[in-house]
Amino acid sequence: MAKKKMILDLDTGVDDALALAYALATPDADLIGVVSSFGNTQVETAAQNTLKLLELLDEQHVPVFVGAAHSSTTDSFETMQVSMDIHGKNAIGDVILPDPKATPETTTAVDFLIASAHQYAEDLIVVPTGPLTNLAAAFQKDAQIADLIGNITLMGGALTVPGNVTPYTEANINQDPAAADYVFKHAKHLVMVGLDVTLQTLLTKKETQQWRDLGTRQGRVFADIFDYYIDAYDNLDINHAGAALHDPLAVGVAVDPNLVTLLPLNMMVDVNDGRTIGDPSRLRDPHKNNYVAVEVDEPFYLERFMNYTLQILS
Amino acid sequence: MAKKKMILDLDTGVDDALALAYALATPDADLIGVVSSFGNTQVETAAQNTLKLLELLDEQHVPVFVGAAHSSTTDSFETMQVSMDIHGKNAIGDVILPDPKATPETTTAVDFLIASAHQYAEDLIVVPTGPLTNLAAAFQKDAQIADLIGNITLMGGALTVPGNVTPYTEANINQDPAAADYVFKHAKHLVMVGLDVTLQTLLTKKETQQWRDLGTRQGRVFADIFDYYIDAYDNLDINHAGAALHDPLAVGVAVDPNLVTLLPLNMMVDVNDGRTIGDPSRLRDPHKNNYVAVEVDEPFYLERFMNYTLQILS
Repeated sequence: MAKKKMILDLDTGVDDALALAYALATPDADLIGVVSSFGNTQVETAAQNTLKLLELLDEQHVPVFVGAAHSSTTDSFETMQVSMDIHGKNAIGDVILPDPKATPETTTAVDFLIASAHQYAEDLIVVPTGPLTNLAAAFQKDAQIADLIGNITLMGGALTVPGNVTPYTEANINQDPAAADYVFKHAKHLVMVGLDVTLQTLLTKKETQQWRDLGTRQGRVFADIFDYYIDAYDNLDINHAGAALHDPLAVGVAVDPNLVTLLPLNMMVDVNDGRTIGDPSRLRDPHKNNYVAVEVDEPFYLERFMNYTLQILS
Repeated sequence: MAKKKMILDLDTGVDDALALAYALATPDADLIGVVSSFGNTQVETAAQNTLKLLELLDEQHVPVFVGAAHSSTTDSFETMQVSMDIHGKNAIGDVILPDPKATPETTTAVDFLIASAHQYAEDLIVVPTGPLTNLAAAFQKDAQIADLIGNITLMGGALTVPGNVTPYTEANINQDPAAADYVFKHAKHLVMVGLDVTLQTLLTKKETQQWRDLGTRQGRVFADIFDYYIDAYDNLDINHAGAALHDPLAVGVAVDPNLVTLLPLNMMVDVNDGRTIGDPSRLRDPHKNNYVAVEVDEPFYLERFMNYTLQILS
């Protein structure tokens, strides 16, 4: 079996930064590219943040592709105040990194996704940690690829717990419910890693101190970035004990589904309220194309997460 | 181990009638009493329907107790039009049965629940198939019993699929969200058998014909009652293939949880919209008192259901 190839689709963001680090560290897949999206911030900022973080981690060989600047149903996008409160004005905890030497590729995110789907097919894993706008656009431009991509594992949605934007919707899905609905229904194999499980994985300053203690620039920068996020969770009364590992959990599950319990359930996204919920019209269909993570082995994941991040930040 | 004792809490109702038949037929528990509730119909009608069905099945020795006439937050209750459309004006498919010889007990439903909890404790299974008003009132009158009752397995709620009253709420929970919230949070061990699984168990006229073919009065009456329900599902565009075995599935799961996959998840009921959803404040609590049925072995259940009902209707 060929080694899996991974594409991240990031709206880089604090926990996106950790998803990137985890994807670079895992031995179970090669990161072949990072696609950018609006979401936690503007798409150009997301792409620049990704380039900066790749350079910090000495992984500037990974290509970065610019994706959607706004949702499939709007003409523009303004970053939400709550996103800036949680991720910082520059979306990476207001930590200043040098302008990157590399620039984004000229190929679009959509064309990169399509070409990769044809090239790697079953061996391709796509991990979106923001809106599903890029993937929906790729599916709509080349209908074949929905059946080619072996594994889409996304951070987003909330099935068994309330949302974090409204009681019904989670932030990533809320950015583009129509795109999410399209991807859920058309993907060959889609795993939803939502608030159901990500809210159960908490990182605290005890762990970021371990990065700091490495004595490296990378360790210090990542600790500064994530401490901003922990402080935001504290100040906004989201959680006083630590902050959730939303996006890196999706990467973990993408390469090792055994970290979670998966419920086979054909889903839909309600375009009115952004809720991710079982699709009544496909409930009794024995063929399932969606799987929802409903339980997580948090201690095991956290141990692996720390092993990987301590290794790549050294 | 002592044989389990079961109390049904029915708003009798077409599928409640089948829950009653299933509970009488199962060898895994003794039915020690039936509590009545408002819901599909008025509480007095529910009690009378239960008495009529017990007499039809020659099980008039089972005592019937009258419970709540309206929800914990209202002063009266009017049967919903949709309930009459689905269950018939008399709630048992407009099938006319003789007035029963037996009458309801003078003990109230709440006092019977309390006394049974103290008498049987861990060996007691309570199966509510309507609103949770009686149980909440019993918990509130005698706080000890919440920790005594070994197993509450209810038909109600919708976690992974939309509701059937609104996209957010299921009919039984919707009748008294506050009572349901209280019971979910205080029960020692509560299993929710909701639309997630009950919508996957369909009975068709092929099966009711098997009852009819028994040539007994009981078989014919139950076939007439359930055919009304199948026709209503068809006419109301709920399902054209058959009708869901909502309430009898809860009885099946109560005595054999292996019929379903259970997700351990501490729940709450949103009193504003009636949604059954994970309780964020108890999400990371390792102690779980709620379990949600999220998958069902439908062919196996249907086979057992037909075995039991063919036996008791003979």
